[in-house]
Amino acid sequence: MRFFSDNAAAAHPAVLEALAAANRLDTAYDGDAWSKQLDGAFSDLFETKVRSLWIATGTAANSLALAALCPPFGGVICHREAHISVDECGAPEFFTHGAKLLLSDGEGAKLSPAAVEAVCAGIRPDVHQVQPRALSITNATEYGRAYTPDEVAALGEVAKRRGLGFHMDGARFANAVAHLGCSPADLTWRGGVDALSFGFVKNGGMNAEALIFFKPELAEATLYRRKRAGHLFSKGRFLAAQILAMLKDELWLDNASAANRGAALLAQAAGGRLIHPVEANEVFLRVTADEAARLRALGFDFYDWGPGAARLVISWDQDETAIRPLAEAIAAL
Amino acid sequence: MRFFSDNAAAAHPAVLEALAAANRLDTAYDGDAWSKQLDGAFSDLFETKVRSLWIATGTAANSLALAALCPPFGGVICHREAHISVDECGAPEFFTHGAKLLLSDGEGAKLSPAAVEAVCAGIRPDVHQVQPRALSITNATEYGRAYTPDEVAALGEVAKRRGLGFHMDGARFANAVAHLGCSPADLTWRGGVDALSFGFVKNGGMNAEALIFFKPELAEATLYRRKRAGHLFSKGRFLAAQILAMLKDELWLDNASAANRGAALLAQAAGGRLIHPVEANEVFLRVTADEAARLRALGFDFYDWGPGAARLVISWDQDETAIRPLAEAIAAL
Amino acid sequence: MRFFSDNAAAAHPAVLEALAAANRLDTAYDGDAWSKQLDGAFSDLFETKVRSLWIATGTAANSLALAALCPPFGGVICHREAHISVDECGAPEFFTHGAKLLLSDGEGAKLSPAAVEAVCAGIRPDVHQVQPRALSITNATEYGRAYTPDEVAALGEVAKRRGLGFHMDGARFANAVAHLGCSPADLTWRGGVDALSFGFVKNGGMNAEALIFFKPELAEATLYRRKRAGHLFSKGRFLAAQILAMLKDELWLDNASAANRGAALLAQAAGGRLIHPVEANEVFLRVTADEAARLRALGFDFYDWGPGAARLVISWDQDETAIRPLAEAIAAL
Amino acid sequence: MRFFSDNAAAAHPAVLEALAAANRLDTAYDGDAWSKQLDGAFSDLFETKVRSLWIATGTAANSLALAALCPPFGGVICHREAHISVDECGAPEFFTHGAKLLLSDGEGAKLSPAAVEAVCAGIRPDVHQVQPRALSITNATEYGRAYTPDEVAALGEVAKRRGLGFHMDGARFANAVAHLGCSPADLTWRGGVDALSFGFVKNGGMNAEALIFFKPELAEATLYRRKRAGHLFSKGRFLAAQILAMLKDELWLDNASAANRGAALLAQAAGGRLIHPVEANEVFLRVTADEAARLRALGFDFYDWGPGAARLVISWDQDETAIRPLAEAIAAL
Repeated sequence: MRFFSDNAAAAHPAVLEALAAANRLDTAYDGDAWSKQLDGAFSDLFETKVRSLWIATGTAANSLALAALCPPFGGVICHREAHISVDECGAPEFFTHGAKLLLSDGEGAKLSPAAVEAVCAGIRPDVHQVQPRALSITNATEYGRAYTPDEVAALGEVAKRRGLGFHMDGARFANAVAHLGCSPADLTWRGGVDALSFGFVKNGGMNAEALIFFKPELAEATLYRRKRAGHLFSKGRFLAAQILAMLKDELWLDNASAANRGAALLAQAAGGRLIHPVEANEVFLRVTADEAARLRALGFDFYDWGPGAARLVISWDQDETAIRPLAEAIAAL
Repeated sequence: MRFFSDNAAAAHPAVLEALAAANRLDTAYDGDAWSKQLDGAFSDLFETKVRSLWIATGTAANSLALAALCPPFGGVICHREAHISVDECGAPEFFTHGAKLLLSDGEGAKLSPAAVEAVCAGIRPDVHQVQPRALSITNATEYGRAYTPDEVAALGEVAKRRGLGFHMDGARFANAVAHLGCSPADLTWRGGVDALSFGFVKNGGMNAEALIFFKPELAEATLYRRKRAGHLFSKGRFLAAQILAMLKDELWLDNASAANRGAALLAQAAGGRLIHPVEANEVFLRVTADEAARLRALGFDFYDWGPGAARLVISWDQDETAIRPLAEAIAAL
Repeated sequence: MRFFSDNAAAAHPAVLEALAAANRLDTAYDGDAWSKQLDGAFSDLFETKVRSLWIATGTAANSLALAALCPPFGGVICHREAHISVDECGAPEFFTHGAKLLLSDGEGAKLSPAAVEAVCAGIRPDVHQVQPRALSITNATEYGRAYTPDEVAALGEVAKRRGLGFHMDGARFANAVAHLGCSPADLTWRGGVDALSFGFVKNGGMNAEALIFFKPELAEATLYRRKRAGHLFSKGRFLAAQILAMLKDELWLDNASAANRGAALLAQAAGGRLIHPVEANEVFLRVTADEAARLRALGFDFYDWGPGAARLVISWDQDETAIRPLAEAIAAL
Repeated sequence: MRFFSDNAAAAHPAVLEALAAANRLDTAYDGDAWSKQLDGAFSDLFETKVRSLWIATGTAANSLALAALCPPFGGVICHREAHISVDECGAPEFFTHGAKLLLSDGEGAKLSPAAVEAVCAGIRPDVHQVQPRALSITNATEYGRAYTPDEVAALGEVAKRRGLGFHMDGARFANAVAHLGCSPADLTWRGGVDALSFGFVKNGGMNAEALIFFKPELAEATLYRRKRAGHLFSKGRFLAAQILAMLKDELWLDNASAANRGAALLAQAAGGRLIHPVEANEVFLRVTADEAARLRALGFDFYDWGPGAARLVISWDQDETAIRPLAEAIAAL
């Protein structure tokens, strides 16, 4: 049983149905009937007027957001273990034309206002040093931790005071919302977020994420950047349709809740082995190499996360039946 | 009836079936069972060992190819009306980090060896001028003209002599092959082509093209560039599966042949109105504004192509029944 | 005697004296006493508040200006024979991160409002095509032609209407002003120019040009871009001092006038051989290969300018005595 | 008395004399008599065939070197406090088109082989992470520490084993050589260095550094990159002449020795206040805010280097007479 990545999971049947339903003649690029519904659908969801673009990958969505918020000569404050820094092969640098990631620390890959202030304070305000222009956080974080609306708002305050654009990498935004039970609006623009990469692929989608601009004027240049990066699909309706399917009847929230439940089940079984509180669909365990080997011998697959640790990710389609054997195996270690 | 773009057409049912079949757990990115078959499948098709990457859009495939062939300070010789110059919003400049497109002319958007030589001859070999490093042609061209294997080889000769990487934009490669009845190998690497953007989306695919490197060593850096451009999909099997479905039983060739047949039918009806010989699935007609209006009044949709001209594109799914009414309407003008 | 480039000439003695005078301890970069005088000096000269930066080369000044006026995904309208297009090895593409030069034509390397409008009109206002965002002209042009204040203003009108930033490459701005006898203000911002590369090197300087922003707010980002491009010299006072020396007592104008006079002398001698009216310090002659050889045999050096043509450039330090023999040799051909 | 930067110092009289001597007609750019001597002069100095380019600033020299050694999608290992990371406003990112600086630590801003290995070991060899492609060290370091030939060679070993290009930022290379008494060859290519930014400006030059390629083939692309960055000066002879003047009769070494002697004098006076051993022309002192104020009240100017520390830099033109009062003031604190 695979627990190494929610990217490995299948797409939800509703997504495939949506593709089939969209499989007819329509206008190319984003002039079709599905793409035109996105702004409305997301504006409803976020209770404010937003501009939204379908983007095929989270990496592209994140990088396009950063390019909209930070000039080539600026810096983006983020956590040292942020996906944009560690796992995107320099995509932010590519899309921003060489902006610098200004790395900070914090437990569970979370940034605090103080940490952001410390980065700013350490930079001389002269032309010799890259000046911070944007702040990027991941919610839920790379360690499955959720920023609360209050925590987001506190960072939004710093961003505003320092003149930083504020981006949220929401590859697992759904899991954060599901965990917190808050409104998407409270977790984003009400706390000062300017742009959100809203992930669907890890959550039952196939290849469509959404980039949401809460300051609609930021979208304009991004339309050109998206095209220029080869991300304006000629049959864009197949991306829009996926997203609409995920939004319909809160499928995105249901899927995330299911994955979170699975993770909670494992967390319960793991007890003192937990490295981080489980607030999304990821579980980080202390396990010896021997223990890890025993779990694998039982057919469970997962990532080693440095020596003595393992990462297990639960997907939308892994229900209690799927999780239970692993939970028991962990408890039995 | 829409004749304005083959991008508007539906995806072939086999492509959707392939998506459904691929909709199960597998390794993320391009480590899955489908992606791993691509090199073999394309090596068979091209009768030589190739490296192949799935890429979601033709714009990205073209630009990644050019980035592999041309340094940031180099130039890419192409036709003034090439898609890479006119319709990709500067994507080649983005991916190559500012290489310059060196524009040339030629009937039907075709470049001749003499035209390429003329571009080279007009550039002083000093550091003040951008030196040509690559040659890019489109086959079939933006005007639906096909380069023959001999014509490709003649350009390949120039490229070799001048030290130029040689790229073929094959958004409608299938239509060219179908028209010429030649082997894919003869139309590409045997004529000196280094990299081919092999299009599937206009030909019944959904969102997967292939970038083929006939010099396998060129692929290495491109793997990083693809990731960095946000084009490494986490569920890459859904792209690979589309391509494999298109390759199976020569579906790519059947679809292109069907579209070509439709175009030939229109060409016959158009007679002296033809602006370009019809060698693929595009038909360019001389029509007055009044005539264009009359066709539209009958329900036919297409692009105006400057004053007095119209472009009609036939898709893989438009059979004789679909084409016949338009052919008759054109003949009756 | 060398007539092939005003770049080959010596620096004016006043410039060397200024270097010597500046050769003492001061603050590094542009915090020194000389650099701080630039804004005032240029604001006086241009009769309006400007921001000015010393830049060592015209290529860098031009490219920094374009980067200030045009986003990476935009286009810069310029003449097909503009220095920025032909002779800077893609520097504008480098500094702007891949903006496209949109080439137009016009006699004597001059753009007309109609030509600019035609470029704009030929571009579909959609994301597939690079949208024009800036206009760049050279004054005096690459063929030694001067735009008058009225001509500049007419282009400024178009730029304003089309939302284009307006840049003037003034590598030979001094020669244009000397020829026209107008005020620097009339030839620039009063006609809508936003940024001027004010050349000194071809006119008796050593290695200092000025980049003038008539919209002071444009300078801010350029300070970072200058540093980032390695163009913020640590001993910047040696650049500022050169410029101040050139501005003092209108040395810049005197030098240009001297060079223009020399060119006028040659023009007179050349008569019907002139390819372009002589309005600056460049003379383009119709000469056969044999005639060119005869001139060279007499010790005159110059550029061939394609078959049957020669370019002669007069420098600030070539007085009548230096010119006369060439004028006679031309007359005697 | 200013001790805050060797950039603030005057240029050596021999440099000004060289400028005066070069102030006559010659070929533009780097086709002149002075520029042509550089390769020979540096090949002599380094006892091997090198290619050398004049570059006006250290920032540009460093960045051009890195662009020659590292692709846009690669990483450059350097010290966290390296000038290229901290004080060049993202110039390396600009010139390399977005390569990432991979930061490491080490006492006195020195990298050890183990530290470099640790960076490499921490990076998964897949396309999701930026792969190290180059190593850059500063000699003497930002804290005035000198790498010995053995230390350089040990790093060169790692670079070779890991396939990393090896760059040395030699803004104060002269000071390191003067301190070590070794040959320039031993400190560079014999230890595996591929490219050296050889600084002259901090050492008595005006605005000319040299970029030395010990693998001559690396120079070719850099010639284009230099032009494209606006760093090919039209009157390049004024840069070449400065460098030749500095090389003549080992002026570069004499100047550096003089500055080092001054620093040694201060070091002696400072005793236990020294934060770093003094191996070049920089002295880092522990001083309280009050002590710093007292020194400043006596007319000595310098940088605060965080709380409780001061940086003093001695220039080539500060002889014992100039230094003695400061040494005494420090001793008297």
